[in-house]
Amino acid sequence: MISSIWSNPSHLPTALAESASAVDQLIDRLLAVPDGPEARVYEAMRYSAQAPGKRLRPFLVLASASLFGVSLTSALQVAAAIEMVHTYSLIHDDLPAMDDSDLRRGRPTCHKVYDDATAILAGDGLLTMAFEVLADADTHGDPAVRCELVSYLAKCAGSAGMVGGQMIDLQAEHDATLDIGAITRLQRLKTGALIAFSSEAGAILGKAAPETRKLLHAYAHDIGLAFQIADDLLDAEGTEAETGKSVARDAEAGKATFVSILGLAGAKTQARALVDQALGHLDTFGDKADLLRQVAHFVIARRS
Amino acid sequence: MISSIWSNPSHLPTALAESASAVDQLIDRLLAVPDGPEARVYEAMRYSAQAPGKRLRPFLVLASASLFGVSLTSALQVAAAIEMVHTYSLIHDDLPAMDDSDLRRGRPTCHKVYDDATAILAGDGLLTMAFEVLADADTHGDPAVRCELVSYLAKCAGSAGMVGGQMIDLQAEHDATLDIGAITRLQRLKTGALIAFSSEAGAILGKAAPETRKLLHAYAHDIGLAFQIADDLLDAEGTEAETGKSVARDAEAGKATFVSILGLAGAKTQARALVDQALGHLDTFGDKADLLRQVAHFVIARRS
Repeated sequence: MISSIWSNPSHLPTALAESASAVDQLIDRLLAVPDGPEARVYEAMRYSAQAPGKRLRPFLVLASASLFGVSLTSALQVAAAIEMVHTYSLIHDDLPAMDDSDLRRGRPTCHKVYDDATAILAGDGLLTMAFEVLADADTHGDPAVRCELVSYLAKCAGSAGMVGGQMIDLQAEHDATLDIGAITRLQRLKTGALIAFSSEAGAILGKAAPETRKLLHAYAHDIGLAFQIADDLLDAEGTEAETGKSVARDAEAGKATFVSILGLAGAKTQARALVDQALGHLDTFGDKADLLRQVAHFVIARRS
Repeated sequence: MISSIWSNPSHLPTALAESASAVDQLIDRLLAVPDGPEARVYEAMRYSAQAPGKRLRPFLVLASASLFGVSLTSALQVAAAIEMVHTYSLIHDDLPAMDDSDLRRGRPTCHKVYDDATAILAGDGLLTMAFEVLADADTHGDPAVRCELVSYLAKCAGSAGMVGGQMIDLQAEHDATLDIGAITRLQRLKTGALIAFSSEAGAILGKAAPETRKLLHAYAHDIGLAFQIADDLLDAEGTEAETGKSVARDAEAGKATFVSILGLAGAKTQARALVDQALGHLDTFGDKADLLRQVAHFVIARRS
């Protein structure tokens, strides 16, 4: 049972740390460095995947899995896979050809430590390995469940999801004219889709009824947007020391964001409304969903 | 049945053209361009996936599937998936940060027509979609078979396969001291792994016995190496007009290749020996394996 890893589920920081530690240990095992000269790409994959981070997406997988009595082994496999996909997206997004970022998770970015070619390959390797992990027999005894995980992750991460969102974002980089609908759609694809996968993963693993899975989808949709609004607020108000990445980049680039459209106060109100709405979708789960409730509060209270 | 697409299976160019056309049609459908601003990444994916090419890997999938009475629908899904992965690898390898190639399949490379960021995303999108296609119910009625396809493709394409091979290749770029063992291992990972997947896919789809699948693995190993030796020969002897890509790059870079180690004549002898060995692995399949036999001859006779 999942609950065995939360020694204090009522205290989110403890639960987050315990979940992160379990996921990091599995990733460490999955990314064992081989002997040959291809070791370099494994080292780059490890460098980025093991950088300090909130591990929010893996946490959502574990917390949603805990609703359905899913085994810890199953949930951790999916948690590791989603963290690999998230890390790949950061590595590629940070490349000079994309956002050209030097700092990520408080450390130099992958291409700064290695080089652009190695960073591209490290991202490719992590994305590919995520699917290998999901298809592995350890992930679930029923191959139909594993196929559903592969299929849904591909939809969420690919050109109809995260990759499509990043494509839109690159074109909107210097566009101050996007309206709230366009920005919402951009973020739903770019960051919302992986959050949806993470939140629904427990329902897939637990073979929950479609209407139950839909509640988690709706929850994810709301916290995903709230998360992005919080990100925009951190970019506008946070410091590099707090966030571990470059800040004030949106305003410099003249980019439309939730903050530029809604204003600081309006963005905060909107984020709080989304969190309330997210909590509403959890009502039927009772106390078991307390961790997901805390996550909803956390996404707008975080300082990094 | 697969045979329905080969109107003249004894004539390889006809069979290749018919298979390529069927795969291209499916890829065209899978890559339908959506309405939103993410259309740009789909266009870049289509530009590269639909560029003229031999479609050798999809052909290997269809030819191996024809040995086991696999349905055309199943085989085409896998054929489309492997062509997407092959195309992604070309797009990323051609980037300025990697091989910096301007020409591919007789056309400007993806990043030349679009830009580096779009090319990175187009590669990411194709790789991701390949797994979506394999996990799709259309690919096989048995989800365990679909999982095996996902799992084996990930192994062949990832850091323990193609990505690892490209990592080794980048480090060996200016290294004239690699011996034949090191180059053989490099090529087994970089190009051999996807050829192995393609040749074994029919056996996976047809749930063939492990020892039968091993024969196809051995066949793929031999033609994969022969293919690479032929590539090195084309780079040394071919013209840009013939090959549709830049040539004489290896010698310019001072890179060790099969040709630099074995010499032109030695490389040709070695390639022929590998083809003979590949043919030996097909003996038990009888006439049904004639297309695979023709492919073995073709990989060293081709001019592009």
